[in-house]
This record gives sequence, structure tokens and C-alpha cells, in this order.
Amino acid sequence: MTVKIFDTPEVQNFLKAVSGFDEQGGSHRAKQIMHRLLSDLYRLIDDFDVTPEEYWSTVSLLNALGGQTQFGLLSPGLGFDHYLDMRQDAIDAEAKRNGGTPRTIEGPLYVAGAPEAEGFARMDDGQDPDGETMWLTGQVRDVDGKPVVGAKVEIWHADSKGGYSFFDKTQSEYNLRRTIVTDAQGRYTARSIIPSGYGVPEGAPTDQVLKALGRHGQRPAHIHFFISAPGHRHLTTQINLAGDPYTFDDFAFATREELVIPANRIEDPAEIARRELDGPFSEVVFDVELARTEAPELQVRHKRPRALEDAEDQASQLAGTAEV
Amino acid sequence: MTVKIFDTPEVQNFLKAVSGFDEQGGSHRAKQIMHRLLSDLYRLIDDFDVTPEEYWSTVSLLNALGGQTQFGLLSPGLGFDHYLDMRQDAIDAEAKRNGGTPRTIEGPLYVAGAPEAEGFARMDDGQDPDGETMWLTGQVRDVDGKPVVGAKVEIWHADSKGGYSFFDKTQSEYNLRRTIVTDAQGRYTARSIIPSGYGVPEGAPTDQVLKALGRHGQRPAHIHFFISAPGHRHLTTQINLAGDPYTFDDFAFATREELVIPANRIEDPAEIARRELDGPFSEVVFDVELARTEAPELQVRHKRPRALEDAEDQASQLAGTAEV
Repeated sequence: MTVKIFDTPEVQNFLKAVSGFDEQGGSHRAKQIMHRLLSDLYRLIDDFDVTPEEYWSTVSLLNALGGQTQFGLLSPGLGFDHYLDMRQDAIDAEAKRNGGTPRTIEGPLYVAGAPEAEGFARMDDGQDPDGETMWLTGQVRDVDGKPVVGAKVEIWHADSKGGYSFFDKTQSEYNLRRTIVTDAQGRYTARSIIPSGYGVPEGAPTDQVLKALGRHGQRPAHIHFFISAPGHRHLTTQINLAGDPYTFDDFAFATREELVIPANRIEDPAEIARRELDGPFSEVVFDVELARTEAPELQVRHKRPRALEDAEDQASQLAGTAEV
Repeated sequence: MTVKIFDTPEVQNFLKAVSGFDEQGGSHRAKQIMHRLLSDLYRLIDDFDVTPEEYWSTVSLLNALGGQTQFGLLSPGLGFDHYLDMRQDAIDAEAKRNGGTPRTIEGPLYVAGAPEAEGFARMDDGQDPDGETMWLTGQVRDVDGKPVVGAKVEIWHADSKGGYSFFDKTQSEYNLRRTIVTDAQGRYTARSIIPSGYGVPEGAPTDQVLKALGRHGQRPAHIHFFISAPGHRHLTTQINLAGDPYTFDDFAFATREELVIPANRIEDPAEIARRELDGPFSEVVFDVELARTEAPELQVRHKRPRALEDAEDQASQLAGTAEV
């Protein structure tokens, strides 16, 4: 079939009507973006001779993705989260907001309201029989190397099966989720367990999309961080544990070389005793450098629907920072 | 912000990796279409400086749309269904498959397996207290005006509140859904009730999209048809009842001038008695012309996930037609 109708006046006028150009109400920006989006999609249908069968199976797939709340899972798989990071890096570079540990994607599994501790927290509830003890520690510094005292380090990660508390109902509340405020030396320390990598559920709508592209849905073992302090750029990042087969083949494109960290196995009884542990453990050291900013809106994470976080929390978080 | 990164080699290479160009498996066509789709969307994000907040609220909206199975409702609202019809019209014209009653969109509310009758059926269960009696009749003809005997006329429409059986659980099974096979004169006749127009549910995700565009989500009163017969082009169409305030302002863009039909109020006792009715009624006459085709795949409706219809039904439908 060689029929192309996209450039006809009939289609072009139709696109304007669909986008609400003839209507008084609504949002000018929404109309402009919708007109562009629909123009792109209509042209794609025309150029690829997309059949009704293909179109309607896509509609079904979209319903299935939303029905399982998987758009936030597909999104990094299609590179959008990383692309937004690339754009933010470029925006920061242009604004000369340089320095600091690199950002990487948040992912959809943060839960607000984790227990807060000063300097040290134990993150795991001791119930994971396969959990290998992890000693996670680091210093938060500014771009001049000065320790940042009182920085808020929010950490969340998966268990030994790749599951996250709250989403994995077999785990206890806030298991492997803590907020640690850095001590007088700018340090945070967590006792936890080594997380496992994990994959998109086999056969799920997200998996169907990836399979059609010949791709897998695996993530390497990783640990999520939000790090913030007054006067500094809020940092959303992750570290990958070195040596995972997927470290440089993450379906979510979150890996950045500077964020690949070794987990060092320590068996020295003196080191074990010093940490009051009962056996060998793996130490992960992640020091963080925060860029400086005076802009209050850059000192907090961007707004996004998150589990147990509502718009009011975000507003008060912003207000709190602005007052400092 | 004036930062643009779309045309950088970094982004262009990333798009190829995301689309699976580096992978052996998967579908070549899926990769090509995904690459085009992602390129369009990434460029849109860059050109409009889409913020993370805007991006993530869109992801939430997509989850909500799928969570309520509304992509099939939003689709005609964004003109896709009508656009696919425009393309099919152009494809038929190029293939010289001319003539016949115009097609229009199917909508998402067909349910397979309605009761079948010869020549005449009563469609309503008599339980709608506001249901005004409708006498719906017409002749199916070929392009030479010859009656088509034994054509299958599938009809489905809303009740006096705009609800459809199966989706509206207060209605009886298959209420206002029938398949009528045309008689020796090519005629079909249904006793039913005048349907009401209806709107997208207030505040639903689809409504949120339309509101952002300054648009309403109303449909005029209408009646859906599938009409098929061996040797003829399968027709998916609708008629709109003339005089509805939304007849020419349908949010789903289904209206076509040739398909706007008056409902004529008849109070003549002789006409009432002839139809064995107990009072005045409204008569709707819709004659149908079917185009000719020898291609079996054009004699059946296109594949699409439909309520109570599975792939096997569609295969046997196709096989049945091919045997004729």
C-alpha cells in the first residue's frame, strides 16, 4: 500500500480540531504539545502503513500496561528516564552548575516516610535468610571537599530476591528503606544486606515490549539514593555493585561509570568486631559530592507521583528549604 | 531554557540501543517503528522543554487510563479511529473499491455473540421505562441496487441513559444487541428503543485529557452496525439520529453527513397496528449499500480485541467466508 494522506488539508485541519485549536478553554501548552504529538503519531501511522490490527493491539497493550501500573517500569526501559537525566546534565552545564556526583534515574520504587536516623541505621529487618551483610558507608562533601554535616541521605534497595518492601508484600514495612542524616564528619553508615539484581516480570506487558525489540528486562544489583542539604543541589542517584553480569547492560540505562562501586568482602575478625557484626561482610563505600545552588527549587527532588508522598509533603519540603 | 540535545551523537546512538538495533532477536518492524516513535517523542521533549514534572504526570495519566481500560475511549477522542477510516477510504479508492455506504468508527463497546434472528428482532427487553419505541428498518443492496439476501446485520446501541449492556451491569444480557439476517427482499427490521447520546465520565482520565484541550466528551445519539455478506466488503458503520445537539460535534468524530438519519415520529393508529405496537413510535430507515469484493479478508471485520470475541472466532469467521 502506498496511500499517504497525512499532508492533505483534510488531515491537517482535522489535527487542529482534535487538538482543541477551535476551542476557547483548556491549556495553550497542552494544545500545542498534543498537536505535535498527534501529528507525529498520525505521520508514523501513514509512513509505516500501520494496520488497524497493529493499532488495536497497541491500544490493548497500553490498557494492559496501565492496568498493571507499568508505565513507570516501561519508561526507563524505553530510555526516557535516562534521557531526562541527559537533558538535566546539559541544562546544569549551561547554567555552570558543575561538579558533584553524577545523577542517575530514580526508578518507580521510592516510598516516602522511611524511618530517620542520625549517622547510622540498620536497614534490614534480619528476616532475609539469604541476605549477605552489607556495610554501606560514605562521606557527603561539597565541591571544595568540605564535609556536609546534617545532609539527608535517603537510601532504598532490593532484598536478596530483588524485591522491594511495600511493593513486595512479604517484606516488613520500610525494610531496606532508611533516611540517615550525616554526622559531624559528614558521614553516613548503614548496616544492610547486599541487594540482588532483578528483572521485569516474565510475560508482563513491559516484557512484551522489550521482547519485541529483542531486549532483556534485567537490572544489575544497585542501591538508590536521594541526597540533599540546604545550599546544595538535590541529588537523585544510584550505585551499581561491580561484577554483576548486567552492570553495563542495565535494561533501565541507569549505569554510569562513576557510580559502579565494588563490594569488598571482609573476613578480618578485628574489622568484624569493630562493627559489632557476627561474621564476614561486604563493605561498600560511596562518597558523595554535592554541587552548590542557592535556588530553593533545585535543593529538593522534582515533583512526581510517589508512593505515600502527596503534593502537600512536597510543598512543605520546598518551603522548609526556602526558609534556611 | 534553550538546551537542545536531540541531535547529538550521544542521543542518536542511545535511541538505536533503546530500539534494540544492537540485538539479534525481536521483530524488525517493531524496532523500526519504536525507533521512529521514540525519536519523535524525544525530539518533542527537547523542543518543548518538557519538565520532569510534566513527564511524570503524563506517566501517571497513562497508568490511570489503562487502569480504567480507557485507551479505547481516548482513542476516538484523539481522532485515531476516524484517521484510520480516512486512510482506509483512501486505500479503497486507490484499489478502485468504490461505492457503498460510508464506513465510520466501531468504538470500543461491541460485544460478540448477540442473539441472531431472521428478518426481524426485538432488541430491547422492555425494562427501560424511558425507552421510546424505535422501529429501525432498511434494505441491504449491492452497488447495482440488487437486494442482498442473507446479509448479516449486527446492531448495537445505548439505552435511554446512554448505557450499553455488558458494560452497564444494570441491563440484561445482550439488551439492545442483535444480529439480524436479511430476508428474501434483503430487508432487516428491529423493534427497539431510541438511544440516548452520552458523555465520557466526568473527571475520568479521558475527560482530563479532553478538558486540557478545552474539549467536551459528548457523543450524539447513534446506532452501531456491522454488515457483512459473502462477496461483499464488510462494513463497520454508525448512524446518528438527526437533531441531537452533538450530531455535528461528536467528541469521537464519527459523524458523516450520509449517516445522519431522521427519527420520524408516527402516531397513525393504522401504522401502529400494522407493527403490532401499543402506541406512537419513531421510525428510523437506514438502507445500506455494500461494495463488492472477492478478497475473503475484506469480507470480515478487522481483527481487534473485542468483548467475548476471541482469536478463534475470528479465524473461523474468516474460514467460513473463504469457503463460500
